[in-house]
Amino acid sequence: MPPTDLSVEASRAGLAESVHRVSCAVVTSDDRLLASSGDPEYRTWWRSGAKPLQAIPLVEDGAADRFGLSSEELALACASHSSEPVHIEVIDSFLSKVGIEESHLACGTHTPLSTAMAHLAVRGTLTPTARWSNCSGKHAGMLALAKHHGWPLEGYQRAEHPVQRRILEEICRWTGLPASDIGLGVDGCTAVCFALPIRRMALAFARLGLSSDPAPKRLCGAMIAHPMLVAGTARLCTDLMVAWPGHVIVKVGAEGIYCAAVPALRIGIALKVEDGDMTSAPLALLEALHQVLTRLDPTLAGELPLAQLGRHRAQPIRNTRSEVTGERRATGNLRFYDS
Amino acid sequence: MPPTDLSVEASRAGLAESVHRVSCAVVTSDDRLLASSGDPEYRTWWRSGAKPLQAIPLVEDGAADRFGLSSEELALACASHSSEPVHIEVIDSFLSKVGIEESHLACGTHTPLSTAMAHLAVRGTLTPTARWSNCSGKHAGMLALAKHHGWPLEGYQRAEHPVQRRILEEICRWTGLPASDIGLGVDGCTAVCFALPIRRMALAFARLGLSSDPAPKRLCGAMIAHPMLVAGTARLCTDLMVAWPGHVIVKVGAEGIYCAAVPALRIGIALKVEDGDMTSAPLALLEALHQVLTRLDPTLAGELPLAQLGRHRAQPIRNTRSEVTGERRATGNLRFYDS
Repeated sequence: MPPTDLSVEASRAGLAESVHRVSCAVVTSDDRLLASSGDPEYRTWWRSGAKPLQAIPLVEDGAADRFGLSSEELALACASHSSEPVHIEVIDSFLSKVGIEESHLACGTHTPLSTAMAHLAVRGTLTPTARWSNCSGKHAGMLALAKHHGWPLEGYQRAEHPVQRRILEEICRWTGLPASDIGLGVDGCTAVCFALPIRRMALAFARLGLSSDPAPKRLCGAMIAHPMLVAGTARLCTDLMVAWPGHVIVKVGAEGIYCAAVPALRIGIALKVEDGDMTSAPLALLEALHQVLTRLDPTLAGELPLAQLGRHRAQPIRNTRSEVTGERRATGNLRFYDS
Repeated sequence: MPPTDLSVEASRAGLAESVHRVSCAVVTSDDRLLASSGDPEYRTWWRSGAKPLQAIPLVEDGAADRFGLSSEELALACASHSSEPVHIEVIDSFLSKVGIEESHLACGTHTPLSTAMAHLAVRGTLTPTARWSNCSGKHAGMLALAKHHGWPLEGYQRAEHPVQRRILEEICRWTGLPASDIGLGVDGCTAVCFALPIRRMALAFARLGLSSDPAPKRLCGAMIAHPMLVAGTARLCTDLMVAWPGHVIVKVGAEGIYCAAVPALRIGIALKVEDGDMTSAPLALLEALHQVLTRLDPTLAGELPLAQLGRHRAQPIRNTRSEVTGERRATGNLRFYDS
């Protein structure tokens, strides 16, 4: 890796202790590579970074209108939420409008992403069932799509089911890849997940952010209107869309994936922390966004409220006595290409 | 990184999803580099990998004899323990023999490394105080050394205290480095930690495993005799020294450090998972050990009970429905040099 590449370093007494390498692609909506770090053609799993695209058929095919889904419920369909009370409220109304039960959700259970909720779960005050899954909105959307089309509800999460075939069409459309070039796997939540180059993920986000089609416009609008529903307390997806409303659409994915669209610049950004570190991914995304804005539109860069996003810029590393022993922050630079 | 280097990969549906690069050095007790991965001169923090060396003055200066420390207590002085009941029993007798209180321990508190104990802590059934720190044995040893020499107990963990100066002498002696070449930082537990090339960590372990001096012999013997006290349930340090008694001395360190001595081969091994991933470090150490044994002594390699250590060889990755979606395992190879 040349020294200029983007990475996130955890240092101790000024010496880098752990280094998280970042592959990143910054792409225009007409598929020009503007900037990169590491390998912009890095082929990996999109995981939850794909959720806004996976939600498109829900709106485009008429299911969202048919069931009267609100913009809150559409935001949750695109979310990796933290299982906070506000998320459970929305999933409950979502299930109720579609007329499905929690037992229809194929997503299993996991420790909530919210530390507070996770502690309640360990204490037995809360039993996280399928509704509490960070992916419950995506699954409710898939079930709504199946019900709308009269497809079986059973097995909606599996690659051979019409719901997943319909979603794959959409993934192909936005990434510009034939289905044969997209790897299929089983995600943490049991639904299909997709393997493709991060450059194509960035392209899909660039297109998503600019699209004038009603379905993507409505979904992006829902994410922008309800950042808290897209992720949760103290998470970058939420904090960035709250701090800089309307300028950016951001979505995290498991194992170090982060995607963003900046419609004003007609670009998408996708990155993968190569080792999958989830603590590093938000720091890398915010640094990449900052560098891209600074290079392409210094005025807009000046409007990015970095001060409000301090916790996602640099994090002190503290020991068991709360003494600061080091720091975690992004370092290195994107390579920019002539445009 | 050439394709042959050692790494740990988490794959999904056959495609590597997250990759953890490993720098490793295999060194003889007379400082010949036998094998490596990545950069054997990689300079990083030794963290708890240094504990067996940090414990040497405790024995060598006569404190262990003066306070009548048992081999269990010496094993705990070298440990990063999991805060299981057996560890708390030993730290209690250790403190009592030295005549110090828990309040003397400068190590702060943290969530126990044992998941079972961590859950008790979240539930409020257990309040992890300083005794429960994974480093409590090291700290008790440092206090015993201070008391034995008549040095102040206060501030024993700081670089300027005679305890830490005495330990630094020992770190210099075993690594062959002058103090000016060893970086000093504050560890997670507030004590001094050391930055140096991993090759020197491997050299120190090679020498440690072979030494006929009474202090290192007694400490290595204690670790070999009480593997459960060195780490805890289901951890590689414990499992490997239980499964292959007397053949190997192994010690983990935070942020992806693992060190081992194989006295029969007169070697030490030190590795750093570059991104600090603690799940990958044991898989990398066991794979490196297996490759070294296979190359240097196939007969001995045949005796390494890999079947008993399956959980440290490959780990299925399961989703929220317990379906296997991928696997975590070490891949790549050490480079061997003519010897």
